[in-house]
Formats: sequence, structure tokens, C-alpha cells
Amino acid sequence: MTRRLDTPIDLVPRMVGQGYRRADVDARRAWVEERTGVRFEHVGAYSIPSEEMRGNVENPIGAVQMPVGVAGPLAIDGTDARGIFYVPLATTEGALVRSYERGMTTLTRAGGVTTRIIRDENRISPVFLLDDVGQAVEFASRVAADVDTIRADAESTTKHGRLLRIRCHPIGRDVIVDFEYFTGDAQGMNMIVKATERACRGIVERFGARRFYIFSGLSSEKRASGALLGGGKGKTVTAGANIPVALVKSYLHATPAEMVAEWQHSVVGHLQAASVGFNAQYANGLTAIFIACGQDVANVTNAAVGITHYEVAADGGLHVSLTLPSLTVATVGGGTALGTSRECLAMLGCGGDGRARKFAEIVAAALLAGEISMAAAIASGEFAAAHETYGRNPPATADRARHDEP
Amino acid sequence: MTRRLDTPIDLVPRMVGQGYRRADVDARRAWVEERTGVRFEHVGAYSIPSEEMRGNVENPIGAVQMPVGVAGPLAIDGTDARGIFYVPLATTEGALVRSYERGMTTLTRAGGVTTRIIRDENRISPVFLLDDVGQAVEFASRVAADVDTIRADAESTTKHGRLLRIRCHPIGRDVIVDFEYFTGDAQGMNMIVKATERACRGIVERFGARRFYIFSGLSSEKRASGALLGGGKGKTVTAGANIPVALVKSYLHATPAEMVAEWQHSVVGHLQAASVGFNAQYANGLTAIFIACGQDVANVTNAAVGITHYEVAADGGLHVSLTLPSLTVATVGGGTALGTSRECLAMLGCGGDGRARKFAEIVAAALLAGEISMAAAIASGEFAAAHETYGRNPPATADRARHDEP
Amino acid sequence: MTRRLDTPIDLVPRMVGQGYRRADVDARRAWVEERTGVRFEHVGAYSIPSEEMRGNVENPIGAVQMPVGVAGPLAIDGTDARGIFYVPLATTEGALVRSYERGMTTLTRAGGVTTRIIRDENRISPVFLLDDVGQAVEFASRVAADVDTIRADAESTTKHGRLLRIRCHPIGRDVIVDFEYFTGDAQGMNMIVKATERACRGIVERFGARRFYIFSGLSSEKRASGALLGGGKGKTVTAGANIPVALVKSYLHATPAEMVAEWQHSVVGHLQAASVGFNAQYANGLTAIFIACGQDVANVTNAAVGITHYEVAADGGLHVSLTLPSLTVATVGGGTALGTSRECLAMLGCGGDGRARKFAEIVAAALLAGEISMAAAIASGEFAAAHETYGRNPPATADRARHDEP
Amino acid sequence: MTRRLDTPIDLVPRMVGQGYRRADVDARRAWVEERTGVRFEHVGAYSIPSEEMRGNVENPIGAVQMPVGVAGPLAIDGTDARGIFYVPLATTEGALVRSYERGMTTLTRAGGVTTRIIRDENRISPVFLLDDVGQAVEFASRVAADVDTIRADAESTTKHGRLLRIRCHPIGRDVIVDFEYFTGDAQGMNMIVKATERACRGIVERFGARRFYIFSGLSSEKRASGALLGGGKGKTVTAGANIPVALVKSYLHATPAEMVAEWQHSVVGHLQAASVGFNAQYANGLTAIFIACGQDVANVTNAAVGITHYEVAADGGLHVSLTLPSLTVATVGGGTALGTSRECLAMLGCGGDGRARKFAEIVAAALLAGEISMAAAIASGEFAAAHETYGRNPPATADRARHDEP
Repeated sequence: MTRRLDTPIDLVPRMVGQGYRRADVDARRAWVEERTGVRFEHVGAYSIPSEEMRGNVENPIGAVQMPVGVAGPLAIDGTDARGIFYVPLATTEGALVRSYERGMTTLTRAGGVTTRIIRDENRISPVFLLDDVGQAVEFASRVAADVDTIRADAESTTKHGRLLRIRCHPIGRDVIVDFEYFTGDAQGMNMIVKATERACRGIVERFGARRFYIFSGLSSEKRASGALLGGGKGKTVTAGANIPVALVKSYLHATPAEMVAEWQHSVVGHLQAASVGFNAQYANGLTAIFIACGQDVANVTNAAVGITHYEVAADGGLHVSLTLPSLTVATVGGGTALGTSRECLAMLGCGGDGRARKFAEIVAAALLAGEISMAAAIASGEFAAAHETYGRNPPATADRARHDEP
Repeated sequence: MTRRLDTPIDLVPRMVGQGYRRADVDARRAWVEERTGVRFEHVGAYSIPSEEMRGNVENPIGAVQMPVGVAGPLAIDGTDARGIFYVPLATTEGALVRSYERGMTTLTRAGGVTTRIIRDENRISPVFLLDDVGQAVEFASRVAADVDTIRADAESTTKHGRLLRIRCHPIGRDVIVDFEYFTGDAQGMNMIVKATERACRGIVERFGARRFYIFSGLSSEKRASGALLGGGKGKTVTAGANIPVALVKSYLHATPAEMVAEWQHSVVGHLQAASVGFNAQYANGLTAIFIACGQDVANVTNAAVGITHYEVAADGGLHVSLTLPSLTVATVGGGTALGTSRECLAMLGCGGDGRARKFAEIVAAALLAGEISMAAAIASGEFAAAHETYGRNPPATADRARHDEP
Repeated sequence: MTRRLDTPIDLVPRMVGQGYRRADVDARRAWVEERTGVRFEHVGAYSIPSEEMRGNVENPIGAVQMPVGVAGPLAIDGTDARGIFYVPLATTEGALVRSYERGMTTLTRAGGVTTRIIRDENRISPVFLLDDVGQAVEFASRVAADVDTIRADAESTTKHGRLLRIRCHPIGRDVIVDFEYFTGDAQGMNMIVKATERACRGIVERFGARRFYIFSGLSSEKRASGALLGGGKGKTVTAGANIPVALVKSYLHATPAEMVAEWQHSVVGHLQAASVGFNAQYANGLTAIFIACGQDVANVTNAAVGITHYEVAADGGLHVSLTLPSLTVATVGGGTALGTSRECLAMLGCGGDGRARKFAEIVAAALLAGEISMAAAIASGEFAAAHETYGRNPPATADRARHDEP
Repeated sequence: MTRRLDTPIDLVPRMVGQGYRRADVDARRAWVEERTGVRFEHVGAYSIPSEEMRGNVENPIGAVQMPVGVAGPLAIDGTDARGIFYVPLATTEGALVRSYERGMTTLTRAGGVTTRIIRDENRISPVFLLDDVGQAVEFASRVAADVDTIRADAESTTKHGRLLRIRCHPIGRDVIVDFEYFTGDAQGMNMIVKATERACRGIVERFGARRFYIFSGLSSEKRASGALLGGGKGKTVTAGANIPVALVKSYLHATPAEMVAEWQHSVVGHLQAASVGFNAQYANGLTAIFIACGQDVANVTNAAVGITHYEVAADGGLHVSLTLPSLTVATVGGGTALGTSRECLAMLGCGGDGRARKFAEIVAAALLAGEISMAAAIASGEFAAAHETYGRNPPATADRARHDEP
């Protein structure tokens, strides 16, 4: 490339107030149209007020539209989520909604899904740089003993966050400190970044590290890791159900023993791949719900870590469960209040304060539906046929497909 | 829960032709409104033709809208991608677009990003069940020798897919077989499921396994695993750039040595977390581009695996690179042709046939921008401030923020 | 194979008192000689009293001899280990002792190694089987609240073990409970198996699980896992040193910057391999010390997990450190009191009670020596030459090799 | 620590010819005795000729003795290993020999173990440093095309090694190249280091990398990693057996279904721990055999990676298998010819040329015995009792223990 380094570059236009008025958005989109020759018919056809995009996006040119389907009914017997739900799934993957719908209806016929929240917190893990391993261990010890001051510093920056505990990990001459917070109904990263930054400055002043980095990588925010299985990055949720043998056969087209056998062989494949945890299609359901409900979709990378487990139950039915150790969801903040997100959250009775745990339970139950449906498609040998029916070029027989009648 | 198992359940309405006419979508949405009490003002306000949703979603009730911002200019010197690009990012996370924009403008001022495609394929890994380990090893050997017939079977089902090779992994008395395909410009999973199912039936007939499952879990489709680092699940792409020291200081607010030091300490955190690979924020950029461009967003879980690496270059500048071994992208099929997706792909010159490699290079270059921007924010200690400026409740000084002027 | 299932099999001879008298051992060895045609000249030439083998081996036929070399001096400035040490290394790998010796003399010239114990415990993780996820969460909650009774039960079986804490992990309808003990100077697995079994029986009686398994796999005893990085399986130890630049050049034949660069590139290789942690040759030093000192050598699989880190120090020298999260060592019990083991432990001043922490610090310091020596051989390009010099077929110039003169 | 950096250090004595005569070894041991005050009665009581230690150890002071017991009979129906074997196990862990013996006798009564070698090679993965990602990809392509010259260079240094293939992995601007060799009956690392070093020098000359490091970390020699599951580091071996239900009940004290259930629940624990593969006690058997048979014991860290799998067989019996992807064993070179090692290898009919594959099959079959025995002890609830019987302080009833009568 021969580009001269001092050539001026053609920045996206800067605007007064950062350009969130509809006219600003239109002008910026026109600027892009001019440069790219693309006519943005649909990107410009949004209904959410452009001013509400402030804080959610910069340099807006409009909105993308993603189809949203509804799956259900899904009966849940949780702590916060109780009753029948219809779940919005935003996706462009054919067969996804149908797959989850089949699982939901089967679980609902079986009496529903039991859900529980095991842990509810979020963490951030700054690292402090010391001069030698002796200093690092000493520093860790002093920091651990100073938790009250640290908590006071951290909580001085937030109305909702509570610092639950800190945990120090000396690694060589570095000390990574896990700050573990309760963040209420928010995903909470902005909140805990700010709180932790404040606390870290105090720590450096009082205990004399060379410096700190606000992120060390240990917290596994938005990436997959073995550490996520231990929880602490969002809510740890579990969901389980017993499905009578007759329902397994009728709706999943397999016996409980066949479902367990499929799990066994897939576990071997997961182990062979050095997978993080075990699942069939967490990511499908998670992204579809996260996009619909204004979640931070990048958190799917950490939220999609977990373990699905199948057993033949004492009564001969199928017991299936999943545990999501690091499910980061929110019902306030981020994109939750924007037009379609607010509507989709409301559809689940999950809009606003006091609903994040309920929402987490619904997500877990919905994912359980996806697990049994996909495992059944594999166990019964029907996977390919199902995708052919609902994919981009469905044959004429699509309407009569067995999956269409859950 | 006291629900009786024989109680009828309240299915989402079944409609003629599966209900893709606008009236059908309206009726279905009204049905949900009735059950949930929610008024779907924005979900119903979509502009993409409802009939075009067929094959991308079932039970549609409308579309969600997600704000899309533009970041750039991004200069790329790739094999397929060459020139200046403006990248659409669909997100609700404040500061994300600004963060990528800063990285892009810095890279562009530095002369741009070099990108290369190293590998271009997709795989699926069915498992065959044999009776003992002797049979399994014998089976693997015979299947490996039968690749021509297997290829003929597989390719008989597809116009675009080509079976590149098969690899047999006997594990106990199971044999997992990697089917590795070139899938052209499509993500290709539907294509290769169908092709592989056909081939597997032939294999069972000829070589006598008890049965097969179309998925073993080994292929790591839509989940994170160590195996993904070796590639084969989508395109393996690399992107790199040399940034002169003056630009690093001016726009990243750190020296090259400070950037490398931040990487070093973060690597320790990643190792401590048993992370899969190393990255700062792949998932942010990937989800934003995937949502904008009609990709299968769940593939972010496999695509976000990779390694970012920083070094001080021979001339004292900063060399930064990333390698994405398993980037699953498409420019045809799936959601790529739907309204806003088509427009966003067009904005990158990536609509339609022959553009998937170009698109992959752009994604890799864009992610590189996100990497340096976030690492710089951490290295310079400005992360918290940047997020406060662009998050949901920006202070009055937001307009004057340094990051606003890349 | 045509063997009939009812054919009698030819058992190893059963003897009174299980056959630990020298005559029994001789007879058993003769029995093997008869069956295999091998003449056991050396296996029979052992000096440790055969009766002392009881509790360490069954069906003894003698002892194997492994050469043991000495490496040092190694100066350590730890909490328990302080002073100069000469370390016994039992090995048959040529160059291993020389490699560690070079590292030790370099570290000693640099002022020695600082070591610290961060955590000192061992764990076992039984799993309890419940009927559904609701019961599992309830069970976990009740067990967590019952720690005093559980501790009393567990500690009733042991004089030395102390139950520090329990941690419950509901996973689906299973509940894995980490039992974390202080085990004094013993490796402690037999002790904590017995204590935990007792406690688990009480738990089942009081809280009604279907059953428990004493091992769930979560504790990662004798296997590698990401979870080991978090510690709790043995001692967490750290060791570090600052090596002045002149010493790095003279004895490691590289500059500090070159050592750090080698680390950087190797980290990328480790990440690409989905390695657990980072190290150059922990396993070499660990096995050599463990074999010499009567440790449970199989624990090398968990002990060899850790992270080595290099940085250029503020004074331009090389700072190197390592952290071993899961170092399982003992100075009492197991094989520690047997003939040569007792002597080798004594050589380190680590025989008997109150010495396990000291021993752990010495192991960590010795491993640090191996890390810098191997990294230096790679960084300087001398690895192949060094191995040729000391391997099985050393050339005539071996005596003059540079590594021979640390 | 106040040690002055210029203080002379007290080196282990340097001797003519590096001191392998018995008198040299005695003198060196005396020197250590003087410094440490330890009297080495047993370390000095070795029977293997000290001159034979050359190439296996430096600075020898004698040999350690580790008890060796015999377990068997073990019937194997492999490709190279066929017949009945008695296996030497060097250990100080009470109950280990008994545990393996129980498994072996059970497997033998069941008709024996089927074993197969799937892959037989060893690898080393140097990394080449290039200037940018474009150069790296170009370099990788040219190197891949140059395999004939590279092979000629590499094989010019060795009589036995054969370079099977190379595989290039561009990662950013680095290129890691897997060199995969057949190494005959040797473990082969020294051989392939030398061959690869030669080849790499030629590559640098012809294709112009800045430099190379002989190790990148990717080959996972002597450390655990996900990549090992794919094989290539030593032999990939599989072993399996069908055990009739009556034998499972009589000798394993569990039903096949109970064995499978124990596996299922342990798999969940392994997944939760982010374990590499699945096994019960590979490391126990591997270390015991490796120490007895003169293997490089540090290789246990890579060899202990694999997957054990249980299923209820079609006839209602138990099918058990294991697959060891990276079993590094040798029957020539290293410590294999030293006194007791030679005898222990001979005991298996595995001394010398042409026996490494046979030896690998025996190791795999022996490990299978350990797997079923330990799983049975856990499934039947007898684990704690068994260890109490055979551990360091056996109760008076030890002789009557049920496990004593396999």
C-alpha cells in the first residue's frame, strides 16, 4: 500500500451534540450513501426515536431490522419466574424458532421447567504491578485486610452496586484482585468499572503498587474460559425438567435411553475438542433472546458456557438439566429501554427494576428447550430433514412437516 | 407446579403457508399482545417485506430494531479487501462505535491493515458407533480409503459445496469423522449437514456401523473450544499493522512498550482464567458487524476465538496482529439478503457471490481496530473515563472528550 | 482371542502377611522370572528393608534404581526455606541435571530466589445425587449451613487434618461439594478421603441425597485442568528473582529483552495449543525431585500446572517468576520415609514434621532454575547443542561444553 | 537476603571425564554428605554400573530405589502385544498395585483387552519470526512447498527418524511449523530436535525469517494441553474390552449400569473443572510403569491426556475403552537400557528394537485396568475402605480384604 502517512483521512462527520437528532442521522447516512453508493432504504426506516440512541451507539445512521418470532408456551416454575411465557427470538436462522418451540411445548406438556438462581453477581479483575514476589504476597495480604475501606471507596461511586467481596491472586509479582459485586438489575459493567477504578486508586495510594490495569483478563468478560464455569460473571442459573417417557417418544421421537446415549457420545466429542463445558445450542437461543431484549449481545461469549446433562429418571422418564454459571443479563440500563427491546422485555413481564432474576430464569428455561429439541433431532436422525424444511429454500412439503405441529 | 399433564396447551397460532403475509404477522403479533398485554408499537414498525422472512424465522411477529453506527475510515491492504471502508456496527453498548472508530482511524493513519486468508472451509463431525475398538480402527481405515465415493455422495446434494477431505478419529469404539468442505460464499452449515448426512448413510451401508449421529460435538459449531484454534470452522484470517511510534502516542495515548506491557500482563490473566486464546474485545466488534450484516450471530461463540499479539517493531513502532482461526461469515444465504443486512453488506462492497473472503478480511481488520483501542484505553488508564463519556448517562463534557476527535 | 472365560487365570502368588519378608519378595521375583524368562539381577539388588515396603506397594519383587544427580548451589530466601541448597534429581534424561544446575548457579549468583506460600490445603470433591434442580439447590443451601457438624464428622477420623471450608456447586440435579482441608505435612489424600467419606455419610442421612460418589472429578487430583490454576489442590507457591543484566548475558547467553521476547513468542504457542498455564519444563524438575524424595509421582500431572513470567526489570535486569497453584508435596507419609527418599529429603533439611512448606518452597525455587535455563537455551539458540553434549551419545568434546562450567 | 553478588559460589565438584567412575560418584556423594550432614546409606547402595549412567544424569551421587510390585495376569489381544503379561509397577502409593491387579484380572477373565495403535509419531514445533502478516503467510506457503528439501536436511542428521510431514501455522507475523516425525522405537526428542534445528537453519537461509526458536510451545511436550487430544505427540493408542455382566458384579462389585452412571456424573465434574480429557487414574499407572521401565517420566504430563468411555454393551455387559492420543514411550534410548529398566522392559518382552508399539499397547491395556478398578471402587462406595486397607497404616484385617483376592 502506498498511502502516505500524512494524507488527511476522511472522518465520519462531526456534529453538534454528537448528532442524535433525526436530521443528523439522516445527514450522516446520506454521507455514507455518497461514499459507498448504497441506498439505505431500510436502515433509515426506523421507528425508535433517534435521540434515545444516545448512550447506546455513536455515529448512528439508523437501525437494522432483524425478524423476531415467538416461541412458546413455556411453563416455568422458578423462584422469580412463574407461569406461562411466550419468548421473543430475533434471528435470521431458519428452523431456530421452530426448534425452540418444539422444546418449549414438550417441556410445558411435561409440567414445565424448574429454575433456580444460585449466584447473582458480576466481577472485574484489575491487576496490580509490584516489584517482586515478596512484595506481591505482602500486598495481597494487606489488600485483603483492607476490604472495608475498599468497599467504601467503590460504593461511593454507585447507588446500586454493592461490593460483595474481593479475592487476591498473587501470580509472580503481579496481584490480580477479583472485585465481586451485586449489580441489581443492571448488567453492571460500567458501574463496576467506575467503582473499581476508584477503589484501585485508593489501593495504589495506600499500598504502593507501581500501577494497576483495570482489566487483567481474569474476569473473562465477553470471552470463553474455563474460569467461567465457576461462576461470578453474571448470574448462575440452573433449569431442569422431568419429561415422562410417553412425551419423550411423541414429541422428541426418541426414548429417554436414546437421548442419554446421544449425550454420552456428544460428551466424548466435546472432550475431544477441548470444549468449555457442554451444550447443544446455547448460543442460538441466547443470541436470539439477547438481540430481541436489548442485552449486550457480546456477552453471549461468556453466557454460552455451561453444562447440559441428561439422565434416565427413576420413573423411566428423561431428566434434563442445564446450568449456566455466567449468564449476564439486565432489565435496566444498556439497550433495555430502547423501542423494540422494551417491548420484548415487557412480553416476558421483565421490563425494569426487580426483574433481572426473573429474566435470567426465563432465559435458562428457554435454553433448556433448545437443548432437548436439538439433541432429539440428532438422536432421532431428523436433524437434516428439519433444517431442510425450515431453511432458506424450503421444499413444498414444509407446511406438513412433523415439527410444525408441536 | 400443579399443572395437569393432560391440560391442553395454548400454541402459537398455526396459519396457512406458515403465516408470512403481513396480515399474518400482524395477527400473530396481536395474538401475543392479547396474551401479554404488551403494545408492540416498534416491533410492528418494520419495513422489510414479511414474505422475505420465510426461511429466516418462524412465527414472525415483526422485527426488532437495533441502532447502527458507522466507524471508519479503515484502510485495508488485503488480498480481496483493498481500499478504504466504513463499517456498520449494530449495537446498544455506548462507546463501542467510538472505540472501534479510534482504532480504525489510527490504523488508517498508520498506512492501513494488512489482511490475509489462510484457510477457507467449514466442517461437520459426525460420529459412528462400532462394537469394539478393533472394529473402530478397521472402520476408520476403510472409511479413509473410501474418500472418493464419500465425496461423490456428499457433493451430489449441493451445487456449491466441495468436500476437501475427511479425517477419522477413532476414540474408543466410536469413530468421529471430520468432513471438511469448501462452502463458497455461504456459511454453509445447512449445505454440509445435508451433504454429510447423505455420505454417512452410504458409509453405514458399506461399512456397517451400528448407527451415526450427524453431530458429535467435535466440530465446535457455535461453542468455544481449544480445537477451534486449529481452524477449519470457517475462515482462518490474519490481520496486522505497524503503527509508527508518534501515532501510537498521539492517538493511543501510550508508548509501544506500554502497549506491549499491557499485553504481557493481560496474557497472564488469560492463562490464569484458562481462556481460549487471547483477545480484548473480539466479541464486541463481531456481534456488531454480524447483527448489521445478517450473519448467524450465534457463530460469534466460535468466531471470537483467536489470538491478538503485540510487539515493539524493529523501527520502534508497534506491531499488532490478530489471527481468527474460525471466522464463520457469509455473503449469500442465511440472513444476508434481508433488507438492512443487504444494505450493510453493500456498504462494504460485500453483497452476494464472490465476496465472503473480502468480508472476512474486513471483519478481521475491524477487530484489530477494536483490539488496539481497548488495549490503549487500559494501558493509558483512560478506560473508565471513556465509558463514562459515552455510556447511558453521559456527563455534559461528553462532546469535548478526547476520544471524540480521532 | 479364543481364551475361554472359565479358564483359571494364573494369579501372582498370595502369601502369608501379604509377603513382605525378603524371602517372600525373592520368591515372588523368582516366580516372575520363571514365567518371563528374565533374570532380575538389579531389581533384586535393593538395600531398603523389604518390610518397610508395606503400605507403599503390593506384590513387591524388589526395587528399581534410578540414577540421582545433584544440582546446586541454590540460594533461597523464602519463609520456611532459607539458605543454600543442593537438590537431588532422579532422572534418566541426559542434560536435565546440567540444565537445572545452570539455572540454580545463575540464580544464586544473582542473590537467590524469593519464595512464598500463598495457600496450603488439599481438597476432595464428592458429588451428591438429588432428584431435581430444586432439591439440589435446597440441598446445597442446607449443607452449606451445616458446616460445623460436617467438620466435626470429618475431623473425627483424623489427628492432623482440619476441614477449612466446604463449597457447594449445584450442577443440574447434582451437587458437588468441595471439601478443603489443611493436611499438615502429608499429601493427605488418604486422610481426607476417609474424613470426607465419614462426613458424606452423615450428610446423606441428614439431608437425604439418593447417594454420593466420593470423587466427582472436580478436584482435579492427578490430572490437568483449568480449575487447578485457581489453587486448592496442594500448596500454592510462588518463586521469583531479579537477575542483573551482566549475569543474564554471562550465564544465560541472552539479554533480558531476548529472554522476554522468547517468552512472548512461546506464550502464543501455548495459547495456540490450548495449554493449561505456561511453562518450559516444570515436569522435568518435578518428576526428578518427586522420584528422589518419595513423593506421589502421579501428582506431577496436577503440580506441573502454573505460570512462568518474564519481564525486564526497572534496573534493566531480568525479573522471572513462577506460580505453582497446585503443588502437592509431603514430608511425612507415603513414600517419604523409605530409604533413599528419606536421605534425599534430609539432604534438603526436609525430613519429617513441619517441613512440607519448606520443601514446597525449595521445589518452586528449583523449578524456577529449570525455567530460566531452558528458556535461555531456546533464546540463545543453544538448545540442540546442549542436548547433544549431555545426551546418550555425547561427542568427545562434551567435557569442554560451555554449560559444563556454570 | 544480604548475599553479595560477587561472593564465590560453592559449585558441585568438577571431575575429569565428568566423574562417572564409581570412585567419582562416591567422592561426589561424600562431598554432599559433608555439606548437608546426611549419611547416604541407601543412595550409595546401587548395583547398576556407574559408567552406564553417562548420558542419563550429570553429577551422579548414586541411585534412588523405588519399590516395584507386579500386577497381572493381563491378557492382551493387540496388534503387537498378544498374550498374557505381568506388569512391573514402581510406586510408593499403597493400594496402587492392588487396584491395577484387580482391573487386570477382571479384564483377563473377561477375555482380555483389545489394543490398537492409531498413529505413531512425534513432533516439534519451532516458530519463525517474520516482519508482517503478509510476509508470514507468504513464508508459510513457500515452506510448505519446500518439504522435500526440508526433509532431506532433517533426515541427514538421523539414521532412524523420518520426517512424515510439516504443517505451517501463521499466527500474526509468526509462523509455527509442526515437524512430525516417525521416530521408531525411541521417544525421539533428541533426535528430532537435532534434525529440526538443521532443517530450520536451511529454511532461514532460503526464505529469510528474522530468526527461529526451536520450541514454540505448540507441540505440548511435557505439558498438558487441549491440542494433545488430537495426537501427534507420541503414539495414539486405544484399548477396549467387553466385560460380561457376571464378572462386573463379582469383581467390580457394581452393575454395568452403575459403572456407566458413575462415568456420567464424573464427566460432569471433569467438564466443570475444565479438565483436559477424562480419566480416573491414568497418571498412577503411567508413572509406575514409566519409572519401572526407564521412560522419560516427565512425559507423563502429556501421556496422561486421554478419554475413558463406558457403555452398557448390546449383551448387557460393560464396554469400556480408553484412547491415549499422546503416549510417548520408548524401548531404546533414554533410560531404557539401564539395569532395572532393562529388566522391567524384558519382563514385558519389550526390550530393544521393534518393541515400542508393543509396549505402548501394554501400557494402554494396563491403564484400562486401572480405570475400571478405580471407577468400580467409586461406584460401589468401597474406595475409602480399599485405601485404608493398603495404605501406610493398614488395619489388622488387611489380609482378609476382599480386594486381596482377585
